[in-house]
Amino acid sequence: MDECIFCKIIKREIPAEKIYEDDEIIAFLDIKPVNLGHTLVIPKKHYEKMETAPDEIVSAVFINAKKLMKVIKEAMLADFVALSVVGIDVPHFHIHLIPRYFNDKMPVFWTRKEYKEGEKEMVVEKIRKLL
Amino acid sequence: MDECIFCKIIKREIPAEKIYEDDEIIAFLDIKPVNLGHTLVIPKKHYEKMETAPDEIVSAVFINAKKLMKVIKEAMLADFVALSVVGIDVPHFHIHLIPRYFNDKMPVFWTRKEYKEGEKEMVVEKIRKLL
Repeated sequence: MDECIFCKIIKREIPAEKIYEDDEIIAFLDIKPVNLGHTLVIPKKHYEKMETAPDEIVSAVFINAKKLMKVIKEAMLADFVALSVVGIDVPHFHIHLIPRYFNDKMPVFWTRKEYKEGEKEMVVEKIRKLL
Repeated sequence: MDECIFCKIIKREIPAEKIYEDDEIIAFLDIKPVNLGHTLVIPKKHYEKMETAPDEIVSAVFINAKKLMKVIKEAMLADFVALSVVGIDVPHFHIHLIPRYFNDKMPVFWTRKEYKEGEKEMVVEKIRKLL
């Protein structure tokens, strides 16, 4: 895509700190990191969202992410590495790998709710109906 | 694993609202949802973390997640679905699929930092050295 900032990085029209590259994916530093070493893994071909990428691309992205998570944890002396697909940000399928520290003062997760009586069954029915 | 709560769900020793099941994975509702319809996708075999699961299991989990994201979005009338591997919670590899709404008043992401001069290059060198 001509307008896509990630496609421009792939075509080297915009510089990026590249960590890894193969035929299908590249991994590079997020320029506004949650913590230093925050890495993006993206397919070289443009797919707007994870949901529209073919299965083999989804596999390639996450298998590479798995390898990179171990390396990033070790390199950045992180306590753990979180993986996140935000769903709304740059419209080129990408995943965030974020080195995290027990003392980095950021929430690990969002606030959680409780289901009311009967609500779980209703939700499952809605979802299963569409499968 | 005898002690693992997710293994107990797989063995039906603990009830769960199951959404989908095949030979390799199951998907079921998180009992403490961030939003209703919050779903966990896990491999049936016990792997402590994504990093220790074999590539074919990683593929199976995320390819199924991709399909489920579309269905959950539609079923829950969500604006988008976020995918998250937290890195520290239940020690059985699992991913969270979370229906999100533009007005759900939760942050989309964490606060972001800026790299100082020369810091990006230093970080990339650290990570690449271990690849």
